[in-house]
This record gives sequence, C-alpha cells and structure tokens, in this order.
Amino acid sequence: MKAMGFGELRLVAPRHFPDPDATAMSAGAADVLSKARVFDTLEAALADCALAVGFSARERELSHAPQVLREAAPLILEATHEGQVALVFGNETSGLSNEELARCQRFVVIPSNPAYGSLNLAAAVQVACYELSVAARAFAAPAARERGAASVADIEGLFAHLEAAAVESGFLDPDKPGRFMERMRRLFARVRLERQEVKLLRGLLAALEKKRR
Amino acid sequence: MKAMGFGELRLVAPRHFPDPDATAMSAGAADVLSKARVFDTLEAALADCALAVGFSARERELSHAPQVLREAAPLILEATHEGQVALVFGNETSGLSNEELARCQRFVVIPSNPAYGSLNLAAAVQVACYELSVAARAFAAPAARERGAASVADIEGLFAHLEAAAVESGFLDPDKPGRFMERMRRLFARVRLERQEVKLLRGLLAALEKKRR
Repeated sequence: MKAMGFGELRLVAPRHFPDPDATAMSAGAADVLSKARVFDTLEAALADCALAVGFSARERELSHAPQVLREAAPLILEATHEGQVALVFGNETSGLSNEELARCQRFVVIPSNPAYGSLNLAAAVQVACYELSVAARAFAAPAARERGAASVADIEGLFAHLEAAAVESGFLDPDKPGRFMERMRRLFARVRLERQEVKLLRGLLAALEKKRR
Repeated sequence: MKAMGFGELRLVAPRHFPDPDATAMSAGAADVLSKARVFDTLEAALADCALAVGFSARERELSHAPQVLREAAPLILEATHEGQVALVFGNETSGLSNEELARCQRFVVIPSNPAYGSLNLAAAVQVACYELSVAARAFAAPAARERGAASVADIEGLFAHLEAAAVESGFLDPDKPGRFMERMRRLFARVRLERQEVKLLRGLLAALEKKRR
C-alpha cells in the first residue's frame, strides 16, 4: 500500500498486533505499521469516514449491486473531497461478512477467473491501491532518462551521409535509386533515433568508407 | 496469475524447483506450477515468443524508453495476435539485469511511490496480470444477482402512498406541500429501488397508518 501512496492502515480486532513477523516483512514500510490504528469493531474504525468501500470476491445476497474496481475508482476518488474514504477488506479466510459489508456504502469487486476463485488478501489490496493510484494519477512514470532525441538536422545529416556512402560504394545507382532511401527513412522513423545513435551510425559509415578507399 | 487467467509459467534457472514451499502456497493453482517449464537461460525461455515485455521498477541507462503499464497494455494485447507474448520479471532481489532487459522488445514500468521504491515481485506480477486481464476484458463482473429493479409504476405507487400517508398523518399540508415530495423523489432516485424494497416500504407505511387509526 505504501508503494501506491497509501499511508493509513486501520486494523479491526487483529489476532496479533504488533506482530514481529509483520514488522519483519514490512521492508521499508515499518512506518505504516507503527502508525496503524487498532479498533475493536469495524463500526469504530469507520466512524470518521465519509465513505466505506467494501471489497468482496463473492456475490452477495442482500447487499447493493457490486461495481467493478475500474469503474468504481473515479467515484471513490471523488468521494475523497468529502472526507476520509475507507477501503474495507475482510480477513484472508472468509472476506467480509454480510454484516460488515452492510456497513459499507459501496461494494467493489475485482474481476477474476471464475474457475479459480479469488485473489488473496495482499493481492487484492495491491490491485485496489494500484487502480486508485492510477486513477488519481498519483505517480508519474519514472522520468525517462534524457533521451537526447536526435534533431531533424541530425537525422537529415545521417540520411545524406548514408545516401552518399551507398552511392560511393556502388550499392546505389544515383540514376536508378529505387526506393532505397524511402525505406531507410521509414525504418529510422520508427526507431526514433537518439543523437548518440546518429553519431555512432555516422561513425560506422565513415569507417566503412575509409576502409573501402 | 491464475486468478487473472494466466496459465503458463516459465522459470529461468530457479534456485529450487519444484519447491515444496511453493507447492504448499499455490493454493488451488498447483496445476500452473506442475506445468511450469524450466529453462537454463532467458534466451531459451523466450525463443518461441513474438514479443518479450520486460518489467522494471528502475530507470535504465541504455534501454529503450519505458512505457507505463496502463498505456502498454493494449499494445501488449495486440501483439498476442502475432504469437506468444512473454511478461518478463526479474528476481526479488535485483530485478532484471540490463543484459536481460536487452532481450526484451518492450520495457514497462508500474508507476509507484518514488519515496518508497518498488513493489515486490509477487505484487508486480499481480498488478501486471490484473491490468492485462482488464484490458482484455477477460472476466465480466460477477453476474449481479437479479436485482428485480422496481418499475416506474412500483415507484410511483410508493410515492402516491407516501404522499397520502404524509397528508393523512398531518405531517404534510396538502395546500402548502413545499418541496417534501420533490425531496423524497430525489432521495429514492439515488438509491435505485428494488421491487422488494418498495414492497417493504409500502408495508411499513401501511402499518404506520393502521397504528394511527
């Protein structure tokens, strides 16, 4: 959850807490565990929330109609303007009870393989946090390393060099050039050359030309 | 991965395989493990694939520009028409090496909290499989239980009943009704009543009317 930008964990009647195993596994997110708040009941945990979103893999009898996570995400985000929003998950074994789901105002499912059954708890939490962080555009893609894209002039320089070398080598007949350069242009347009790559290619061409002489 | 509809696992030079711990944890997906194929090298594992998509949390120096998972998903799906597509993940400790990434034709990142670092391997695989299964519309939402939505006639019947009861009880002055019914209509429009609920509400109203008499 921390990797997706979520920091507030509330636990309802945990069997063990703090738990040395959990702390050991929290790898860099020990702060989330140490700030976690423990409540005796789900009702108490949700008391200050504007919206509680229950996650369930199973179809329920009495509850409101479920929404799939992707469709629910923008609505969940919208609700954060009104106050705290809780994402409510049941325990690993049995998920949320009907009574617990009835304390939620929305009911969300993560579509999955009906032949296999449901995600485990950690996987469901991860997917939910991921979907919400994408919907919120919480994190940019890691800044692409300065690609140093080649300029049009760089690329035209390369094409001129390539054509000259092709002619000079006898590979290309300047009177019947066919579609050689058109094909080269198409190829290199696809790869979006970097400046450094243009330099390398021209270096190679120059070396080949020299060798021939 | 099975929960998201993926069935083919390839392992490159695993430390232990088969591993009794892995089998024990595979809960219902033992078939994926037992069908898993083991290769000595990544090159061999990818030999029959039309596309290899490398997942990495870190920015790389030499490789092609990364794409975020959500944007890459439709392109990855498209490639499945050409042949097998491999989703390539590195090990838990260090991810994919530059050499391994160089064997991939696409490079995908899962955006995450830069202050925390990356997802663990299982979480990254889960999120990737989820994103692709949603992009492929692989699984429908669990069929919503027959809601038995109330018809317009049912709802109008309820409103008429409600208004009559409100007037009869003295709560609503029929000469100065204000916006009471408008508010009720707005409220019940939001909840999208079911037939059964209309019946319950009308039963309640009838009981209240009877009591007053």
